[in-house]
Amino acid sequence: MRFKFSLIALSLEVVMIVSFALFVEYETSQNGSQKSASQQNASQQNAAAQQNASQQGNASRPAKEDQFFQLYPLFQHVHVMIFVGFGFLMTFLKKYGFSGVGFNLFLAALGLQWGTIVQGLLHSHGLKFPFRIKNMINADFSTATVLISFGAVLGKTSPIQMIIMTILEIAVFAGNEHLVTEIFKASDTGASMTIHAFGAYFGLAVAGVLYRSGLKHGHPNEESVYHSDLFAMIGTLFLWMFWPSFNSAIAQPENNQYRAIVNTYMSLAACVITAYALSSLVERRGRLDMVHIQNATLAGGVAVGTCADMEIPLYFAMTIGSIAGIISVLGYKFLSPLLAHKLMIHDTCGVHNLHGLPGVFGGLASIVAISWGKSTVSTMAMQAAALGSSIGSAIVGGLVTGLILKLPVWNQPPDEYCFDDSVSWKVPKYRELDNYFFQHVTHNHVEHEV
Amino acid sequence: MRFKFSLIALSLEVVMIVSFALFVEYETSQNGSQKSASQQNASQQNAAAQQNASQQGNASRPAKEDQFFQLYPLFQHVHVMIFVGFGFLMTFLKKYGFSGVGFNLFLAALGLQWGTIVQGLLHSHGLKFPFRIKNMINADFSTATVLISFGAVLGKTSPIQMIIMTILEIAVFAGNEHLVTEIFKASDTGASMTIHAFGAYFGLAVAGVLYRSGLKHGHPNEESVYHSDLFAMIGTLFLWMFWPSFNSAIAQPENNQYRAIVNTYMSLAACVITAYALSSLVERRGRLDMVHIQNATLAGGVAVGTCADMEIPLYFAMTIGSIAGIISVLGYKFLSPLLAHKLMIHDTCGVHNLHGLPGVFGGLASIVAISWGKSTVSTMAMQAAALGSSIGSAIVGGLVTGLILKLPVWNQPPDEYCFDDSVSWKVPKYRELDNYFFQHVTHNHVEHEV
Amino acid sequence: MRFKFSLIALSLEVVMIVSFALFVEYETSQNGSQKSASQQNASQQNAAAQQNASQQGNASRPAKEDQFFQLYPLFQHVHVMIFVGFGFLMTFLKKYGFSGVGFNLFLAALGLQWGTIVQGLLHSHGLKFPFRIKNMINADFSTATVLISFGAVLGKTSPIQMIIMTILEIAVFAGNEHLVTEIFKASDTGASMTIHAFGAYFGLAVAGVLYRSGLKHGHPNEESVYHSDLFAMIGTLFLWMFWPSFNSAIAQPENNQYRAIVNTYMSLAACVITAYALSSLVERRGRLDMVHIQNATLAGGVAVGTCADMEIPLYFAMTIGSIAGIISVLGYKFLSPLLAHKLMIHDTCGVHNLHGLPGVFGGLASIVAISWGKSTVSTMAMQAAALGSSIGSAIVGGLVTGLILKLPVWNQPPDEYCFDDSVSWKVPKYRELDNYFFQHVTHNHVEHEV
Repeated sequence: MRFKFSLIALSLEVVMIVSFALFVEYETSQNGSQKSASQQNASQQNAAAQQNASQQGNASRPAKEDQFFQLYPLFQHVHVMIFVGFGFLMTFLKKYGFSGVGFNLFLAALGLQWGTIVQGLLHSHGLKFPFRIKNMINADFSTATVLISFGAVLGKTSPIQMIIMTILEIAVFAGNEHLVTEIFKASDTGASMTIHAFGAYFGLAVAGVLYRSGLKHGHPNEESVYHSDLFAMIGTLFLWMFWPSFNSAIAQPENNQYRAIVNTYMSLAACVITAYALSSLVERRGRLDMVHIQNATLAGGVAVGTCADMEIPLYFAMTIGSIAGIISVLGYKFLSPLLAHKLMIHDTCGVHNLHGLPGVFGGLASIVAISWGKSTVSTMAMQAAALGSSIGSAIVGGLVTGLILKLPVWNQPPDEYCFDDSVSWKVPKYRELDNYFFQHVTHNHVEHEV
Repeated sequence: MRFKFSLIALSLEVVMIVSFALFVEYETSQNGSQKSASQQNASQQNAAAQQNASQQGNASRPAKEDQFFQLYPLFQHVHVMIFVGFGFLMTFLKKYGFSGVGFNLFLAALGLQWGTIVQGLLHSHGLKFPFRIKNMINADFSTATVLISFGAVLGKTSPIQMIIMTILEIAVFAGNEHLVTEIFKASDTGASMTIHAFGAYFGLAVAGVLYRSGLKHGHPNEESVYHSDLFAMIGTLFLWMFWPSFNSAIAQPENNQYRAIVNTYMSLAACVITAYALSSLVERRGRLDMVHIQNATLAGGVAVGTCADMEIPLYFAMTIGSIAGIISVLGYKFLSPLLAHKLMIHDTCGVHNLHGLPGVFGGLASIVAISWGKSTVSTMAMQAAALGSSIGSAIVGGLVTGLILKLPVWNQPPDEYCFDDSVSWKVPKYRELDNYFFQHVTHNHVEHEV
Repeated sequence: MRFKFSLIALSLEVVMIVSFALFVEYETSQNGSQKSASQQNASQQNAAAQQNASQQGNASRPAKEDQFFQLYPLFQHVHVMIFVGFGFLMTFLKKYGFSGVGFNLFLAALGLQWGTIVQGLLHSHGLKFPFRIKNMINADFSTATVLISFGAVLGKTSPIQMIIMTILEIAVFAGNEHLVTEIFKASDTGASMTIHAFGAYFGLAVAGVLYRSGLKHGHPNEESVYHSDLFAMIGTLFLWMFWPSFNSAIAQPENNQYRAIVNTYMSLAACVITAYALSSLVERRGRLDMVHIQNATLAGGVAVGTCADMEIPLYFAMTIGSIAGIISVLGYKFLSPLLAHKLMIHDTCGVHNLHGLPGVFGGLASIVAISWGKSTVSTMAMQAAALGSSIGSAIVGGLVTGLILKLPVWNQPPDEYCFDDSVSWKVPKYRELDNYFFQHVTHNHVEHEV
């Protein structure tokens, strides 16, 4: 892959730099107050605050500074989720940890630049758009869709294929997100539909097109070892802890943001309890399965996303989280094998169970919440339209992307080298000895046993 | 444990959801300003700020928003300490890492729901109480007591036993905390007494009742491996770094909060130096012991907790930290073996040395500080009463809890399966090979040597 | 090392406590507004805000509180970089992980106390100086220089040698930093010159003096294993994510701070892309090298440091980051071997490629930016003087320090025990078996192959 990958990556970086030169500018007190007011709901309140402040004679300074210092910690929480959370969550495979955390970093760094451009241009009314903390949050958000889809194809694609998926998926995501928020004016603060369901179904569509019949009976590398499961728990915990910030980062300040935080906190806590209970219930001898613990405990954060900032009671958020934990474990246990064997969709990380099903459930929950009058900023029909367009655009976009990735020019690894870092990375020799040795011992061990 | 654990967990989650439906509501501008004013000291200042703001004509909005954005980052630091800090700190055992970090997540998620209810009802004057960022901080705090006690019994109890301990311990904790803060009106901002000493002595009492004479000569699983010690350092460092937030999160805003941060920062820095010095001093050939580094470096955060927000000079905070580091290492080296062999109390993580002794020392330090006039919000007698009631209620509560846990119906693991994940978790086969192999090699190795 | 290390450490802690008693006091409303106004540029604005606030009748409270709550999250990000970022980045060696993360904690805890004193006295005009959040940020900063130099000598020095280096280096650093900011009045917000270039060249000078000809053909311990590379990625990611806070923490509030954040964010994203591209380009078969990914992806944060808060366009920041990623990978591939074999400077972590070259490049970039009129607070000549004095003082200070460390009384480990934890740490026996075993298997393995 030597020259192809390097040249594609360097060329893309040149494109990004030129695009930033053409389209992006700093926020200044001039562009800041005017453009933002026309651009995003959240800014109306700020504009009011600024006006208020102006009357007291000290211009726009304090309001802007406050906004900045309020959002920056939330941005950093999201940032940790994207790079450490998603990154380490994908280190669970015994020989694919370098790729899990390493390609996660690469794709997110690429995606956040591209996401800034695409989203900025779609929302902008002039030739240039200002770059603020909120753009950084949205840029990180747009990479989340790619990282979710990455989970579905983990170990079966080349770096070049993932670059292409990143570019295409973020473009489709930005289009759908614009449709959902600007045209449908639907409510999806925590992005259960526009990020989680979208990312999952996009990834499943790609995985379906790239299905490898040679791996239908599994692959010896597709399993964890003891320490790789502990590394993955680093990812799980940072996602779990900072999810309230993810669901509240772009909520309206004050009450909505406060509600998004407490609802997500309680939904996740409830989800942990049901995920553990179900994991023990469905496994032989009641043992807990690390796959469930690493993933299903997070489903409560996904599912409560859409209605996180609505005036739902806390027990409703907890109920959503509890059900999401149950759905997710059942999905891992019963649905994933079905998908793989009947629909020929092999979903490496089970993103359908963590992001797909809980994302759809979250969209449906928002319809129920609106039917109960818990929010008046959207309608049931518009929420349904948002859910439909998110899934529809994801599947269509994913199928097209999958067909492009299937072209035999992107260095896709052969079946026997799937889930193996050594295709793309220099791997310390110790690891190779590891493998040599443990195969050997397994052999002897079995003989002893027999 | 299949059905018993699952059904207990699911039933408890239903109880939590119903309790939240009955007792908990959002904070609104109505309940926020009134109830909080009567409820917590810290709010008096806020109420004043709100009044101030109201006179300027823009109601309660700015004050509430400020408070929210000031506390939320502190909450997230505490959150990281609870889930990543405590969680990874307990992954040091070679075969008990899944349980260490996994049960930590489960117990904390359960405990924060239960802690919200119990503490809310105790502090509330009406039928319902509002749920604010401060409740989230206190909910996380209440789980810390359980996680400390969990360290004392780590590897020797079943998940069901730990659920029972969580429910009972948080109830006793909330009672004692109410007594200390509302009746004695003692000062314990960083909770050296009410959380650290309480959690340690509660856990020691439970461990004493559950003592296993079969393990008095140790257990082959009760040791670390190289990488498990590195995982544990993740926990140590996140606890160490964010401890200033732990000790300041519920301090009075402004000066008290500022002092709590800088005093904790300096106490911890000093503690690291003495802990390393003592660890080298007490070990053969001056080698450092990872057990000391992982734990005793944190004793400075525990010990400075009670007087963190008092007007003590920084060098006094550093002196407290220095002494705590020394006490803690000496405790690990000399006291833990005594406890195990003379008092029949086996303390897996040595919580007595990290939380017990430094917690008591912190309470005593606060009495000295008050005698020097460094605080006028409490008296020496009330501080002594708080220390006594914390230790007393912990021991009584722990003994009763231990007796309940001793009932032979909670699936307590037999001696030979202690400190072993495979009782409760599906463990990758690599690990089992690991063990097979290394026993084998040890054997050959010894023969070669001989 | 038993008594020598312990006594030196304990004595130093006593010195620190006495120094804090003599020189450091809390910030109070009296000393806060007066001293800070004369002392630091950033405070002028605060003073103005306080005056403003005073006129509205509520004294200095709100302004101080705001400042505190704005800086504390930034401080915590820097704190995580120092302790988890640098700490885990240095766990990549297969047998030196305890030392990497453990000595990092010890040296940083010592350095932050010493840095507080030295910097405080240099900047203070009275006998005592107040201790604020900004002091904590600067204290953490001063330790960064030592931790960078520590990377150059990693595995080849004793704890006592590192203590001496910490004390000497921070003193020289504080002197140079005072010269750069107070005399030259140069601009170096993200400290590309005063921390990164300084720390790197100081470390290289020490490493040069301590050169071991016995290791010129390498050492069997100086390599990573699979899991140690994953631990190192924890360090890389936390450094990468929080670098915008590092570069903005001491910037002027508002616009400068905002620019420092967004420029660093974009520079780092661009740097990741070019670092991956170059790593693949220079390696056999296009494989990525973990050394590059762990380190060169961070060069964009170093290089953009000096001009992070200037009014440079975002595409300029991205260009700086892109070039830094390229320079850094090329340095690892081609320059480090040259340094080791021609100049007899063995740089264990390659700090010259991560901090040295990108730091110098960052200083030069600031001269270009000023020549374009992007900043008026400094001149090209003063920036050049700052770069020169940083490198010059580092090399002279490093050479002197190296000569002192060469005295044969500091327990420097012999060549065969380099890069080995077991010199200074109790290491679990599993690890030793590990080594026994894998040597054995390698042997057999080779025979089989032949």
